[in-house]
Order: sequence, then C-alpha cells, then structure tokens
Amino acid sequence: KHIILLPGDGVGKEIMASAKHVLNATASEFGHSFTLQQQAIGGSAIDQYDTPLPEATIKACGEADAILLGAVGGEKWDSLPAAKRPEKGLLGIRKALGLFANLRPVKGFPSLLHASPLKEHIIDGSDILIIRELTGGLYFGTPSERRDHGNAVVDTLHYHRDEIERIVDKAFQSARLRHHHLTSVDKANVLESSRLWREVVDDKSKEYPDVAVEHLLVDAAAMKLITQPDQFDVMVTENMFGDILSDEASVLTGSLGMLPSASVRSDGVGLYEPVHGSAPDIAGKGVANPLGMILSVALMFRHSFQMETEAAAIERAVHECLAQGYYTADLDMKDGESVSTGQMTEAVVENLT
Amino acid sequence: KHIILLPGDGVGKEIMASAKHVLNATASEFGHSFTLQQQAIGGSAIDQYDTPLPEATIKACGEADAILLGAVGGEKWDSLPAAKRPEKGLLGIRKALGLFANLRPVKGFPSLLHASPLKEHIIDGSDILIIRELTGGLYFGTPSERRDHGNAVVDTLHYHRDEIERIVDKAFQSARLRHHHLTSVDKANVLESSRLWREVVDDKSKEYPDVAVEHLLVDAAAMKLITQPDQFDVMVTENMFGDILSDEASVLTGSLGMLPSASVRSDGVGLYEPVHGSAPDIAGKGVANPLGMILSVALMFRHSFQMETEAAAIERAVHECLAQGYYTADLDMKDGESVSTGQMTEAVVENLT
Ligand SMILES: CC(C)[C@H](C(=O)O)[C@@H](O)C(=O)O
Ligand SMILES: CC(C)[C@H](C(=O)O)[C@@H](O)C(=O)O
Repeated sequence: KHIILLPGDGVGKEIMASAKHVLNATASEFGHSFTLQQQAIGGSAIDQYDTPLPEATIKACGEADAILLGAVGGEKWDSLPAAKRPEKGLLGIRKALGLFANLRPVKGFPSLLHASPLKEHIIDGSDILIIRELTGGLYFGTPSERRDHGNAVVDTLHYHRDEIERIVDKAFQSARLRHHHLTSVDKANVLESSRLWREVVDDKSKEYPDVAVEHLLVDAAAMKLITQPDQFDVMVTENMFGDILSDEASVLTGSLGMLPSASVRSDGVGLYEPVHGSAPDIAGKGVANPLGMILSVALMFRHSFQMETEAAAIERAVHECLAQGYYTADLDMKDGESVSTGQMTEAVVENLT
Repeated sequence: KHIILLPGDGVGKEIMASAKHVLNATASEFGHSFTLQQQAIGGSAIDQYDTPLPEATIKACGEADAILLGAVGGEKWDSLPAAKRPEKGLLGIRKALGLFANLRPVKGFPSLLHASPLKEHIIDGSDILIIRELTGGLYFGTPSERRDHGNAVVDTLHYHRDEIERIVDKAFQSARLRHHHLTSVDKANVLESSRLWREVVDDKSKEYPDVAVEHLLVDAAAMKLITQPDQFDVMVTENMFGDILSDEASVLTGSLGMLPSASVRSDGVGLYEPVHGSAPDIAGKGVANPLGMILSVALMFRHSFQMETEAAAIERAVHECLAQGYYTADLDMKDGESVSTGQMTEAVVENLT
C-alpha cells in the first residue's frame, strides 16, 4: 500500500509526525509494510511553489491508495485572492480524486463528555455518522461569477442524479453496518435540487428495505442536532448543508480535537484528516492534540484497506490513553497535567503494541 | 394603522386570538385605534381557495401597515406539489411585499434557562439578534429547474449588490441600537456571492465606524453559536445560511415557543410571526404557548409603528407573567401546573393594564 502524507500548515506538521509514528507501529505490530511519500499542499505549497495544489501533489495522490492530510490554512495567506488560497488545495484534491463521500463520525468519549456545551443527559449516548456529498453542489457549480459590471453575482447549485445516487448508496450501506436508520437532510420545500435529492432517496430506499428512512429539512436538522442528538444514526446530505451541519455536530461532544474524518470514493481510495483546523495560535508549540489525526489513520485502515482489526486496535489504544488519564491542553480536564503532542503519541503507541 | 391578520394553520388560529386580545388591550391602554382585517394563507387558503396565497390576501397585505401571521403548514398538505404547498404562501407574501429583512432576536428568559439544552454557564447572558436576508439568494434565484431529461438539476444563488447593501445597512443600524458589534456570516472561501457580500460589508463598515465588524464562515458560525453564544451581538447573513443558523439559535435558550420574529422592509411595513411552526399535534387543544405570537405583536409596535413604549409594555407584561409562575405545557417547568393558551393571554393582558 502506498500512502501520501500531506502535512499542510500550522499544527498539521506536528500531528502528521504523530500519524507516521502510529502508522509505523501498526505496520510492524500487524506485519504490514507501507510506502510513505510526503507532498506539499495549502499555504506551505503556496510559499514553496506559488500554488496551493502543485501538479506533483495531484499526480502523487492520483497514484496513492490513501492520503493523510494534516490541516491547511492560516492568516498569513488570508489576503490572497480566492483562487490562490490554501483551501483551494483541499477543494482541488477532493475534486481531482473524485472523493465524493465525506464521512464524519461524531461520538463522545465518556471521560470527555463533561466538556460538552450540552447538558450531559442530552449528549449522552449520541453516536452519529454524518455523510456529506463532497464534490458537487454549490461548491463546484458553474456559473460562479460576477455579472452586471460586478453589481450582481451568481453561484450555482448543480447536481446530477448519478452524483446523488452514489452518495445515497454509500449512506444506506453505512446505515446497514450501524443501526439501520438513515436521516436524509434537504430543503425540499424550497429547492428543486432538494426535491430531486428526496426522490433519489425514496427510490433507493426500495433497495434497502431493512433501513428506516426519514427526511428532515435542514433548518429542523440544525435544531434537532442540539435538542436530540441521540436520535440520529446516519445522516446524509448535500455538500453545503453537510459543511454546516457536520461542523455544528463536531462541537457537541466537547472534544473537537478528537474527531477524525474520511473522504472516499467507491474504489476505496480516500483522504483522511482530523476535523479541526490548522490552529496557528498553537502551531509549533508541541501541544496540539494528535488524536483526531491518529483516529483518522484508523479510518484509513478501515475504509481504504479493509483492515478492521488494525483500525479497531488504534481506536482501542486511543481510548486506553484517555482511560489512563492522558490528555492534551485542549481537552479541558480539571485534574492532573496535560501532556505534549509527542507524549500523547507515545502513549498511543505503547497501548497499541 | 391598518393591520392584516393571517392566522394560517394549526395553532395559528389559537395564537392569533391571543394576539388580537393583546392588541386591543394595548390600543385601549395607550389610546390608539387600529383596524383589523383577517385573510387566508397557507393550508387553510388551499382548502378554501385552492392556492396558498390568494390574490385577495396579497392585495390586502399590500395596503396594510403591518401583518400578523400565526403559522402555516401541516401534514395534510405535505403531498401536494411544491408550488401548491402552504410554505409557498409564506415565501410568496415575503417576496410580494419585499420584506427583505428578517429579524430574529434570541434571548433567554432567566426563569426558563434551565430548559436549555446548553449548560447554564454557556447560554447565560446570550442576547443575539440574527438578521437574515429574506427575499434573495437560493430561495428565489432562477433557473431553478430539472435538466438533462430530469437527470440533473440546478438552483441559483443570485444576489444584486443593492440587495446586499440594504440588509447590511439594516444590520449596522441595528448594531448601533445594541452593543455595536456585527458578525457577518458567509462562505467567502468557496462562494463568489459570499465574496461580494464580504466586500459590501467592508465598504459599508466605513459608514459605521462605531460598529466593530467581524467576518465568520458559516461553518464556524454554526459551531460558535453552540460553544460561545454570548459572544454575538448582531449577526447578519444571506437567506439560506440565515434559515439554518436562526433555527439553530432558536433552540439554544430552551424556549422556542417564546421567540418572535419580524420581516420588514425599509418603509417600516412588516410581517410579524412567532418562530415556532403550526404544531398540528397540539392544534385545537387550547394549550399552545401564545407568548411567541404576543412578543411578535410587541415587535410590530416597535418596528412598524415606532411605538417603543407600547412594545416595551407588552414585553414587560410577558416577563411579569413568567415571574408570577405562569407557564404553558411546552415550557418544561418542574413545579406547579401549566395554564391554557387563553389563561396565559389573560395573564398578559392583566399585567398590561
Ligand atoms: C476549507 C473549506 C473549503 C472546507 C469546506 O468548506 O469544505 C472545510 O470547511 C471543510 O469542511 O473541510
Ligand atoms: C417554511 C419555509 C419555507 C421557511 C423558510 O425556509 O424560509 C421557514 O423555514 C422560515 O424560516 O420561515
């Protein structure tokens, strides 16, 4: 298996070192061998190559079985024109590789739930998998341009039925591996695209009679995530709604720094990254929480390599670290002392081997 | 002053009776006289006139100084084609009257904060005014249609600079009357429309040097509303983002049934309605919470009639009812017994006079 590492910006470099360490430990523990190659993306690619997504990076990723990404972005590049900003690297690689399914599991860690902004009885027991369409919709629709001498503007929300079908299939399949409940989120009372979305979900549901389907309007979903997060199993939605709702969901458990994500396509190739950003304020200090990145490595084993044992071993090692009282500064624990990025990574590796 | 009443569907009729009662009491208390006229909208208009927005309703509203709306919608009409559904009545009247600014104040009531899904130290002190653009964007952009023999679909996010300027002006003016802080929410790292939006906000900010402006991406805003709701003063955003974020915000205080909203245009004409929906499950039982509707009447006095004393008197009366221990069934109080819609309304009127 060939893996590309894209550390990116800010804390990305530090947590990528953690990912590498855990990856190597897992490989030797389970007798695998991987080839790793590092490439540039985001702000650091801008600095080196004057583009957030160099051709060499696209080419290398195109030949990889999986990609690990740290984080992109930072104030330094915020004043560049849109087409040259770090985020374009991320959007570009998703599109170039056709990574249409973004998987964002949101599940609390019992020992961290006290840090949730929600009352414990509300967040307790929540275990949501948000599946966001990642290569269509408003993000990539054309025209996206100024008109009328710069006095008007349009963006275009475009979907093809095929694009909806493949993400909806992915969602039904995921629901089958979980609690057989799928919530499809749209705005069918306003958008024509949502009405097509809803039709596809209803059609597809006939192929998955064992999965219960519910349609929810996006505004109602934004409320229900807060009032009854434990009522969701798998949620599927289009790109922009998914961006908003998955970030909303990511703060519910109180441990954003712990959350992993996967962006995959049908043949299993995928890009794995933590949900948190590049956190420039703490970059270089060695205090970033590496667990979101490390749990992303676990997702890579599961979704790109079909190595469930390895994935579960990493997840178990992370849970054990928390149970042993290890935590990083972001985790808002009352007692004890927080450990560094490196110490946390060592603790995971020790529990793993 | 001439006021149109649109009770609509479900609990709409019951809470409109409350609104009328409070309106009449306020009028006689402060020596005003109003003419009231009732019109049909939503599902009940479909039943009577086969359209969610009869011409007569549009015409009457066009001649009014203000409009009170109960709620629209219900399962009964959910299977109708999109163009014939109750919601179209609401969208249609907003557009027909040019009510471009939706104002949604979100502020907790001390005696109800225990019902918030958020921990008390997080929600405590929050006082947000969300200003949503209401007649542009994805809601009304064309084309909005199927293509490629029904296998593809587009919706269009369209804004003209003027449309952005007027809502941004409204937001700056509102911030001036509050804590001089404005958060503009967009997705400028992806959408061209958001980049124009951001330019307009930056331009306008020169006219309001006394207001501090901050730009926030919509995904980050969805997180911050939950983690730091007390860090917002006025928030302004486009139509679809506003739909999602204002509903998200509406559940934070734990008393959705208490929240009013205003949809206004520059000359002061406005439509006032509670944030909650038609609640078919409790319709006709006389238990609906009338306070969101009654507080919407207060907003009418404030925004359409510039009668601040009257608005404040109604708001004070509502607060006094809560302090006296009155509550409706939705409010999740531990002690005592809940009162009916009618009893709550009487209590407000008594405190008012
Ligand atoms: C950086 C940005 C373009 C990106 C997105 O909106 O998709 C990010 O918010 C995400 O969710 O991965
Ligand atoms: C009923 C629906 C079309 C409407 C909207 O999306 O604007 C509602 O959700 C609202 O926020 O008033």
